[in-house]
Amino acid sequence: MAEITLGRYLFERLRQLEVNTIFGLPGDFNLTLLDKIYEVDGLRWAGNANELNAAYAADGYSRVKGLACLITTFGVGELSALNGVAGAYAEHVGLLHVVGTPSVTSQAKQLLLHHTLGNGDFTVFHRMSNNISSTSAFLSDIRSAPAEIDRCIREAYINQRPVYVGLPANLVDLTVPASLLDTPVDLSLYPNPKETEEEAVEAILRLVENSTNPIIIVDACCSRHRCKEEARKLVEVTQFPVFSTPLGKGTIDEGGVGDNMLIEDASLVSKLEHRLKTGNNVSSRFGGVYVGSLSEPHVKEMVESADLVLSIGALLSDYNTGSFSYNYKTRNIVEFHTDYTKVKQATFPDVQMKPILQTLIKKISSVSANYKPQPVPKVKLVNTPAPKSAKLTQDWLWTRVSSWFREGDIIITETGTSSFGIIQAKFPNNTIGISQVLWGSIGYTTGATLGAVMAAEEIDPKKRVILFIGDGSLQLTVQEISTMVRWNLKPYLFVLNNDGYTIERLIHGENASYNDIQPWNNLQLLPLFNAKDYETTRISTVGEAEELLGNKAFGDNSKIRMIEVMLPRLDASKNLIRQAEMSAEANRS
Amino acid sequence: MAEITLGRYLFERLRQLEVNTIFGLPGDFNLTLLDKIYEVDGLRWAGNANELNAAYAADGYSRVKGLACLITTFGVGELSALNGVAGAYAEHVGLLHVVGTPSVTSQAKQLLLHHTLGNGDFTVFHRMSNNISSTSAFLSDIRSAPAEIDRCIREAYINQRPVYVGLPANLVDLTVPASLLDTPVDLSLYPNPKETEEEAVEAILRLVENSTNPIIIVDACCSRHRCKEEARKLVEVTQFPVFSTPLGKGTIDEGGVGDNMLIEDASLVSKLEHRLKTGNNVSSRFGGVYVGSLSEPHVKEMVESADLVLSIGALLSDYNTGSFSYNYKTRNIVEFHTDYTKVKQATFPDVQMKPILQTLIKKISSVSANYKPQPVPKVKLVNTPAPKSAKLTQDWLWTRVSSWFREGDIIITETGTSSFGIIQAKFPNNTIGISQVLWGSIGYTTGATLGAVMAAEEIDPKKRVILFIGDGSLQLTVQEISTMVRWNLKPYLFVLNNDGYTIERLIHGENASYNDIQPWNNLQLLPLFNAKDYETTRISTVGEAEELLGNKAFGDNSKIRMIEVMLPRLDASKNLIRQAEMSAEANRS
Repeated sequence: MAEITLGRYLFERLRQLEVNTIFGLPGDFNLTLLDKIYEVDGLRWAGNANELNAAYAADGYSRVKGLACLITTFGVGELSALNGVAGAYAEHVGLLHVVGTPSVTSQAKQLLLHHTLGNGDFTVFHRMSNNISSTSAFLSDIRSAPAEIDRCIREAYINQRPVYVGLPANLVDLTVPASLLDTPVDLSLYPNPKETEEEAVEAILRLVENSTNPIIIVDACCSRHRCKEEARKLVEVTQFPVFSTPLGKGTIDEGGVGDNMLIEDASLVSKLEHRLKTGNNVSSRFGGVYVGSLSEPHVKEMVESADLVLSIGALLSDYNTGSFSYNYKTRNIVEFHTDYTKVKQATFPDVQMKPILQTLIKKISSVSANYKPQPVPKVKLVNTPAPKSAKLTQDWLWTRVSSWFREGDIIITETGTSSFGIIQAKFPNNTIGISQVLWGSIGYTTGATLGAVMAAEEIDPKKRVILFIGDGSLQLTVQEISTMVRWNLKPYLFVLNNDGYTIERLIHGENASYNDIQPWNNLQLLPLFNAKDYETTRISTVGEAEELLGNKAFGDNSKIRMIEVMLPRLDASKNLIRQAEMSAEANRS
Repeated sequence: MAEITLGRYLFERLRQLEVNTIFGLPGDFNLTLLDKIYEVDGLRWAGNANELNAAYAADGYSRVKGLACLITTFGVGELSALNGVAGAYAEHVGLLHVVGTPSVTSQAKQLLLHHTLGNGDFTVFHRMSNNISSTSAFLSDIRSAPAEIDRCIREAYINQRPVYVGLPANLVDLTVPASLLDTPVDLSLYPNPKETEEEAVEAILRLVENSTNPIIIVDACCSRHRCKEEARKLVEVTQFPVFSTPLGKGTIDEGGVGDNMLIEDASLVSKLEHRLKTGNNVSSRFGGVYVGSLSEPHVKEMVESADLVLSIGALLSDYNTGSFSYNYKTRNIVEFHTDYTKVKQATFPDVQMKPILQTLIKKISSVSANYKPQPVPKVKLVNTPAPKSAKLTQDWLWTRVSSWFREGDIIITETGTSSFGIIQAKFPNNTIGISQVLWGSIGYTTGATLGAVMAAEEIDPKKRVILFIGDGSLQLTVQEISTMVRWNLKPYLFVLNNDGYTIERLIHGENASYNDIQPWNNLQLLPLFNAKDYETTRISTVGEAEELLGNKAFGDNSKIRMIEVMLPRLDASKNLIRQAEMSAEANRS
């Protein structure tokens, strides 16, 4: 083919980057565009239940695969997606948001079309999205359109932010040279300014040389900007203790057990401990999650008494830092960011973290060779024994599921008791953790789970995707479970039923009826959505949980499963309770 | 009480205007605000399932009661609501959108709070909403806050558009003088400029005087801007034939039968005809719905051959006009708008329709007295007889339900086969029709039904609210049915199951899988949401429909009901099929 349609061009480009699933909904301004998806081998149209869910799904997919595409229709569709797109902006998730718009002619005539505000303004939605986009394009000329599409894909990938593309319906079927596809989209970073980087590296090496007690902290932007490997190598070469933040959890190997063991069996405890000791030489240096004053005491102690902090990809929001309660004793802090590096008070502009980390890894052993590894804190692995009839609690649950997780799992926790509770769990190596700690939009994870499980299926159908969501949050986006059923996907859906919005109750209005929800018969959801091969279970006691998690068949993702976990109304991890107090206080001040 | 909190002040003001239900969701920046709802007698917090649904619900409430209030939380909550708010903007619906924001101190410090974009920008969401707001306020000073709230309420009510109010958490509990409540919010229109109005009236009277074949068309803004009574009187005084548009349907009495009759009984047909003839002297002048070239032939003929058109509150969007296919023979057109009046080519700025119509009503009989009433077209009332076993069709359905509707009903039709199909139904007098014909956001009506049924309950618990929605649209916003259950509301939910997005199939991609949906067991929805007293039915044939609609008990809104109506996949009214062709053509050009 010498020429291909612009619509097909877009999808061929995405397919080249292994964006194999496209999320969104049909609408009359994008229908001919959607036709082109079916022309590209290996591409599929997810067909979401609504646009907000579709945006969440694209976000979840991108967190696993590095880039995602969302398609909506003009006005109504795109605005419904904005909250999800804004979340991707806040949390650095690469996302191409393609909006099918009225034809160029209709726009020029300022027709009062449906899906407009009735005022002839066709740029208003584009303007709104610009506030939450890294860049954008509103295509109008077929000649420049392919280059614009390439530019937008590049920016979404490099900057890991949403990018908006307005694509008028009449351009979709116009053609462009197929040979443009032969040159891949340039995804390389701009090189770091050489002298500036050298100076920064030199300054860092001097700090390392003079340090006896350094630590590394990995945060959200480390994994989102593809620096996990660099972080891993830095730990491997230096053997410095490494900590994550809530948003960074899963970025670095934690050496969790990764075995489906019955941990109430005492004889196994020592085996667990043994396995941990023989973990790889990165995960053995993992010390836990640092959340300022909300950290476990030994984590807090070790981080705050360090004499050098190497911080990779920090995103210092309140819930990620225990309401900004970082309290380092040292002023020797090095921050690696996507667009600059900071050494103590000196900022080195344009020194991007990925290349400088690569340089540093080559040079650092010269100054870190004499470092004497400090012992790192141990994460609690085994629950205090409890009778089988004991009611489930958050504290027991999070410790217990730690030992049910496996290498390669994708673990998704909703903002609320789950995202705070998961901090106490220890991930096996190669785990991906997904939690929207900064943006914190309730209901996000049901959509994100769909996206993650479609991405996981593309990587390895045995890869498990495990969702923990509250009964309140579930209600906001519940219909996306239907899309999971439609695609015969096999996630684990743990619904923590604590009778309403527990995180809000802890912040304010413990017994206020605005924190109540209508109770649903959650276990009827999968049959409602016409699931054929599924499993539903309700667990309320330690014994029921042990039986379920100890069941070998349950451990394989052979079907979609919903597990309703009955928990006390105000039960939450200590860190959430304290965070809630601090948030309430901030609102009053 | 000499002083009351600002939060309470806001709700007392709303209560004074009979805004008795507040829509939205809790979020940590609005919790203390929600406390204040419970301090005001007669006010209730709806507690929606998500923010988009809440916005739709507020829109539906406002269309019944004239004003509504939506409360969301900063960032995540407010952005989720934007599509619903934009719909209210496009379609002229008065809505106060109050957003609970971080405290003034947090904003001043530019803290990287959760629910922000992580860049310290606290005004970005306000800026986004400004694009779809009549006006806005971001409160920061307790001294000016009550006046700002009053101004925003006034603007939302007068302009019938959304207004955005940002309310920082720390201001909620600060106090203001309770005596401010003694002066009602000024809701009066600015007076029309006297001389300009006189000139316009004079010009209109001359046109009427010289006309032998005038007509009146009522459109969306007529009812939204509270001119229904003026329109009614104008028809009554002049006896000119009156037509509505799709968006204006329900604005003027249509004289539908309003009786729960078994119309296959031939002996009743003549009774029906008799009742119609004895309708009031407004409804007897109703000629049908004018949609340009998509109108019924006799409607099109009568409207387009008129020698004078008095157009009240026109909103001339594509779906409202048969893709702009108005084809008046006359150039004698008078347009009454909210902010100007146009007589032929002359624009009279600031001459608002409500006062000028009032003036005109007083004066017009002097020139219309000699008018000889033309016979108006009759709407088809009775179906061609069909065997009981005949499968249901859209055409049969809409004619049949016409005679099941009652005076006072609120009839809500989703964009798609319902909003086009309803055009052929004849409403009983005092019916409110709700359909989002301009904005056309799929899923709107489930939320709008919640709002409308809460409003209806406040007016008269026997008032019926009847929803017609497709199986595809239902999936986008289904969880709001849970809120109906929670409040023990009693709408009729007709789910037209035609196996996917039929309106999209008609536009493009008849058999494309992107127009398919996952089939649900819809009749399991009410038990899933824990409904206690409910009724579910599936009807597929003419006989089943007759049995159901002929059942007297079914006619009383004694419980919540879902009726799944099985319809052929591509079945649609003729006007929708033609509209779809025109839309597809516009996309290509």
